[in-house]
Amino acid sequence: MPVHHAALTLRPQCPGLYEITGDVASELKASGLSQGVVTVFCPHTSASLVIMENADPSARADLQAWLDKLVPENNPHFTHTMEGADDMPSHIKMALTRTSESIPFADGHLMLGTWQGIFFWEHRRTPHHRKIRLTFLGE
Amino acid sequence: MPVHHAALTLRPQCPGLYEITGDVASELKASGLSQGVVTVFCPHTSASLVIMENADPSARADLQAWLDKLVPENNPHFTHTMEGADDMPSHIKMALTRTSESIPFADGHLMLGTWQGIFFWEHRRTPHHRKIRLTFLGE
Amino acid sequence: MPVHHAALTLRPQCPGLYEITGDVASELKASGLSQGVVTVFCPHTSASLVIMENADPSARADLQAWLDKLVPENNPHFTHTMEGADDMPSHIKMALTRTSESIPFADGHLMLGTWQGIFFWEHRRTPHHRKIRLTFLGE
Repeated sequence: MPVHHAALTLRPQCPGLYEITGDVASELKASGLSQGVVTVFCPHTSASLVIMENADPSARADLQAWLDKLVPENNPHFTHTMEGADDMPSHIKMALTRTSESIPFADGHLMLGTWQGIFFWEHRRTPHHRKIRLTFLGE
Repeated sequence: MPVHHAALTLRPQCPGLYEITGDVASELKASGLSQGVVTVFCPHTSASLVIMENADPSARADLQAWLDKLVPENNPHFTHTMEGADDMPSHIKMALTRTSESIPFADGHLMLGTWQGIFFWEHRRTPHHRKIRLTFLGE
Repeated sequence: MPVHHAALTLRPQCPGLYEITGDVASELKASGLSQGVVTVFCPHTSASLVIMENADPSARADLQAWLDKLVPENNPHFTHTMEGADDMPSHIKMALTRTSESIPFADGHLMLGTWQGIFFWEHRRTPHHRKIRLTFLGE
């Protein structure tokens, strides 16, 4: 079974969900594989992944606002604060969402649901260079 | 390495955890594979997956009640409300739990822990037609 | 494509994050595989996994303290209390973090980010015998 590695690069300017579904589909096509599973992996600890509704932006905005409220900045109990007020909340938001997702594909197409999109979730306020690793296993 | 795709269908009538461990084990047997990893994938954004204790139903009831309290309906900050009061909480509950799980198998058996069951987690109140995708990679 | 199974054993004495990155890397080397994906699987329902910053212990301490506060013991609504005050919170903390992670490898090395470590997360107060399953798929 062939293994095909690829990587995406992103430079998010602010916190939020950035859709990568089309990029993952393009890399699947480039892999030449037809059937299998793609591992989407986020190699960062202050950013994460989520598979979320991609039709109505209000759902993503509400999700972001809700999580910001669950994990507020300037928690007086935080000790890991040297890198800024948004650093520790970013790690917590990452831990509550996903670092890896495994998505099946068949006939060269991702088997996502109708309303699903794959999103990179930036949790830091300052622009960062980000990478997403894709590994396709299949045939 | 062969790739074996299968799908389960469910029609949950209310929110809650629905065990699918036996169905995944049956599909593993049907695949004819002995060693590898099965990807369990939920193609919905208002339902999710969790691997949870399957012995005592009170543990699942407490988990459900706790999550309901963490993500209450009728949050005045929600804007994505056209599909009902349980819509946005469903997306949030999904994002906090899992869309994909990867479970190893050997000698034709899922390598789950003694107390683990695989559950589909419905977050909507109205009955939905749901699907779960299974992809077995191995030999 | 070969399948290589391995297992780690741990005996955590108290709640917290226990780094297993080096053990996973050693088992990758032992597998003889060069390219692919390793599935890290936690076969317990009161412990979990997280991929977290491994440089500054204060980030892990803050993460643990934040989660302890989100899921306090002695919640009067809990009914699953026979195994102790930390039992139900352990299941909830597990459900909010991860049971499986999929991590790509290439040239015999885990493709983790610079600051990422793989951690086993014990949620119980009493010492437990714990196992972590590793399955390497690749070539």
